[in-house]
Amino acid sequence: MECIYLNNRNYDGSQISSLWAYNVAGVQDDSIIYFRGTCNVEISHMIDLEDKRENEAIYSSDMIHFIIEHFDSTKLKLVYSRQRLFASIVSEILIDKGFNIKREGDDLFINNKKLSVSIASTSAVSQKIHFGINVIHDYYADLKSIGFEECKIEQLMYEIAESYVNELDDIEKDLRKSKPLDVI
Amino acid sequence: MECIYLNNRNYDGSQISSLWAYNVAGVQDDSIIYFRGTCNVEISHMIDLEDKRENEAIYSSDMIHFIIEHFDSTKLKLVYSRQRLFASIVSEILIDKGFNIKREGDDLFINNKKLSVSIASTSAVSQKIHFGINVIHDYYADLKSIGFEECKIEQLMYEIAESYVNELDDIEKDLRKSKPLDVI
Amino acid sequence: MECIYLNNRNYDGSQISSLWAYNVAGVQDDSIIYFRGTCNVEISHMIDLEDKRENEAIYSSDMIHFIIEHFDSTKLKLVYSRQRLFASIVSEILIDKGFNIKREGDDLFINNKKLSVSIASTSAVSQKIHFGINVIHDYYADLKSIGFEECKIEQLMYEIAESYVNELDDIEKDLRKSKPLDVI
Amino acid sequence: MECIYLNNRNYDGSQISSLWAYNVAGVQDDSIIYFRGTCNVEISHMIDLEDKRENEAIYSSDMIHFIIEHFDSTKLKLVYSRQRLFASIVSEILIDKGFNIKREGDDLFINNKKLSVSIASTSAVSQKIHFGINVIHDYYADLKSIGFEECKIEQLMYEIAESYVNELDDIEKDLRKSKPLDVI
Amino acid sequence: MECIYLNNRNYDGSQISSLWAYNVAGVQDDSIIYFRGTCNVEISHMIDLEDKRENEAIYSSDMIHFIIEHFDSTKLKLVYSRQRLFASIVSEILIDKGFNIKREGDDLFINNKKLSVSIASTSAVSQKIHFGINVIHDYYADLKSIGFEECKIEQLMYEIAESYVNELDDIEKDLRKSKPLDVI
Amino acid sequence: MECIYLNNRNYDGSQISSLWAYNVAGVQDDSIIYFRGTCNVEISHMIDLEDKRENEAIYSSDMIHFIIEHFDSTKLKLVYSRQRLFASIVSEILIDKGFNIKREGDDLFINNKKLSVSIASTSAVSQKIHFGINVIHDYYADLKSIGFEECKIEQLMYEIAESYVNELDDIEKDLRKSKPLDVI
Repeated sequence: MECIYLNNRNYDGSQISSLWAYNVAGVQDDSIIYFRGTCNVEISHMIDLEDKRENEAIYSSDMIHFIIEHFDSTKLKLVYSRQRLFASIVSEILIDKGFNIKREGDDLFINNKKLSVSIASTSAVSQKIHFGINVIHDYYADLKSIGFEECKIEQLMYEIAESYVNELDDIEKDLRKSKPLDVI
Repeated sequence: MECIYLNNRNYDGSQISSLWAYNVAGVQDDSIIYFRGTCNVEISHMIDLEDKRENEAIYSSDMIHFIIEHFDSTKLKLVYSRQRLFASIVSEILIDKGFNIKREGDDLFINNKKLSVSIASTSAVSQKIHFGINVIHDYYADLKSIGFEECKIEQLMYEIAESYVNELDDIEKDLRKSKPLDVI
Repeated sequence: MECIYLNNRNYDGSQISSLWAYNVAGVQDDSIIYFRGTCNVEISHMIDLEDKRENEAIYSSDMIHFIIEHFDSTKLKLVYSRQRLFASIVSEILIDKGFNIKREGDDLFINNKKLSVSIASTSAVSQKIHFGINVIHDYYADLKSIGFEECKIEQLMYEIAESYVNELDDIEKDLRKSKPLDVI
Repeated sequence: MECIYLNNRNYDGSQISSLWAYNVAGVQDDSIIYFRGTCNVEISHMIDLEDKRENEAIYSSDMIHFIIEHFDSTKLKLVYSRQRLFASIVSEILIDKGFNIKREGDDLFINNKKLSVSIASTSAVSQKIHFGINVIHDYYADLKSIGFEECKIEQLMYEIAESYVNELDDIEKDLRKSKPLDVI
Repeated sequence: MECIYLNNRNYDGSQISSLWAYNVAGVQDDSIIYFRGTCNVEISHMIDLEDKRENEAIYSSDMIHFIIEHFDSTKLKLVYSRQRLFASIVSEILIDKGFNIKREGDDLFINNKKLSVSIASTSAVSQKIHFGINVIHDYYADLKSIGFEECKIEQLMYEIAESYVNELDDIEKDLRKSKPLDVI
Repeated sequence: MECIYLNNRNYDGSQISSLWAYNVAGVQDDSIIYFRGTCNVEISHMIDLEDKRENEAIYSSDMIHFIIEHFDSTKLKLVYSRQRLFASIVSEILIDKGFNIKREGDDLFINNKKLSVSIASTSAVSQKIHFGINVIHDYYADLKSIGFEECKIEQLMYEIAESYVNELDDIEKDLRKSKPLDVI
């Protein structure tokens, strides 16, 4: 699984499309690509029908973004489990740095304010996850307000991406040393 | 998904077999069954070949146990993702109660000592996860040593089991409101 | 699995789209939704290429409609088996009420005239089945002509929908108590 | 899919094993094999844990048996749907001959007495279904008691087996002419 | 699996769509359809994003074409393995006729010049493969230049198509006589 | 995918078990392991029921062996396609070295004598392939008799194993740059 940083990117919802990584970076492996930029999802790119129904704007002027793509399965249950696992990893890293994060499903909260947005889905060729964390936001929680230092943001992005890669590697290794189960 | 408490049970490794829940409790749904008792896994019930190779004893005189069974898939990748998610949930609950837990893959640590054991695998009919947390242990970390009160253990078991059920419900709901992805 | 009655609906083919149930009724479970109304499928909504090739009009002025959605698999073989099973259930209920129904595949006949229309398919997120039964039709068989009483139609719809839900529940229970097979 | 009649066979539960058809008849295709003989399932061959728990004898001195094997999938949900569909087909054929059959799940009843036994499951290589219908039985319903003529039994077996083959062919054809679904 | 020859066809990329065989020839089985004609793929029909990125023209004035469709799975890994196997079969047949072919992945070469084009992918309903071999080409390798006789081309097409059908039949038979594996 | 050479091994059929590579070499990746030694498969390790039925001895005093394990799927159709592809790769390499090999399914022939043995199957945790090529054999074809030099055998083993790894890598890359198909 490749772990790639991109400069000067914003998130407008098109990045959730399958094969985006191949298209922008020639990536032909499972990947997690991260970048920092605005978030402004047009209705036509909305995957979550709840957001669409409620006509909810998904906007942030400064976010760190993670775009994950897996080609090993197109099962919705697996991509959503991985999305929750990703949210847990982010939460664990921030808790470890002393921030009082709560995770609920795919959302992170701090002081009851939402810090993140996330979506996951599949096409016929791959699974994709988008996970965005507010760096600056007027209304929702953001890293700046809770005292996260600007100079440590790039390191944070790298740490999160690497942890996810390691988690997935660890799973792959585990499943290659376990026997199938008996049935009573 | 059913959430069931059993009295007077120990874990000897046979509980990881598929259909054990049906056999002991007539359960015909996906389930999480929890109980408190010893842990003493015979070599013949060991699923993890690493433990087998290293002839590692899996023994604890007092543990809380969670036995999860899912019938919706027999994919190893999914059961291992769910196992990690379960470990995250336990970690989050204990952190929330003020304990300084670290999760690494499917293991929980406190002060660099291992607090838990876990295994996951599949048969042709179901996925199973066992997750055990030491209440009392001479060598490894345990809930007693870190000051977890005896009277709160039953509540803890319930809370963990319920949280997993809720997490899975939440995933099921999410995947029923998301559009499939475009491909670039 | 939810079982839902909707008022004042017609079938124009858009109801076969995945996530329609979420969109019109906020349903986030597997579901069978039933309603009574006209049937008028535009060419652009036709799923069956045979109908499309033969430019066959699918029209009825009064039909009872069942729209089934499953999220547990996107396999075509499974959704078509379920569609046939649904047709069998309808047939059994009508036979039990004294009507001389024959089933052939997904079609019901009475006196060699077709009583029903049905289609099934999958998207990347769900399986869907549409099954419609003529209440009044000039050319094909219909419930009125064979003497089915108007006042019993609502009950019939409910009975069919409930029977399908029970059949699926029964299957889920069965597969949770059966051992995998030996191989000779 | 092959349709094969075997002479002089009894059912003792070993016929439910995967690859039995290859072993006894060199069959290398999906198949339905039928024969007439006793039914006497040893506990060790019992697939249904409910029967095992209740120590229920599965015995009949004269039955017609159908053994179905599919290699296209090893999903439990699919084999159980096919089993129900098979039960429906048997029911339809007997109703068509004037017998007042009721189907409940995978069981057939006449005058509230059980006429049939059935089991379905999967191994890592195939799906299997056994369906047996009593010809003579002291306690349960049987074909003789309801007046089914001895001379027509062989024809009945053939008719049932052929109908299942046709049903499956029809499904295969249908799924090769239907477009995938849109998502709202 | 059906093996069908079509007259007077060209390849413009639309033939790679799922259900094309049903649409043009009413085929409701897995199939390999072959024809001889030009190859001129419009950008909008390009499946391979690499070709698209490089804006590579896929043009040939005279090619033999094979269009394969399978409905038994929609897994990318399987369709790509089958595509490579098809390329091997073509290579073996040409080598057997005395031509010095090299295969690299899904491409055939002769004297380091590319003789063939191929693409494979899946939709929600089927797997498809296109494989084209130049008969006449100004720039790439072609059958004419290497001395393949015009009068033998129709026979070659037939031989290739039949060999693929036989290969797949042989695989199906093999998997119906092999036991599942033990686990150490 | 790891490519590993082992010294001083013979093949007795136990190597086809899932997780053998982990057990003997601690391998936790997909792998191709090759070694040179005798071949002597006991009846109890026979996977192919045809061999078992015909009580066919699978014996060779000197063979090169390839043991492949994949954890990405447990589908029989995929492992058999990969097995055929492996046979093609071996055939291509030997043809390229000037030997007149014919492949039929998973068998290689030279002068109408069988040069190789192969088996493939799956467990609940992995796919496995065994492919053995006679170096010396009294009855069947072997590398020595056709003039293959002893000093080049180690190189041949390496070349075959590497080619398979490259073929699989190439497939993985291809499926990560191709769009899903339209449906007509």
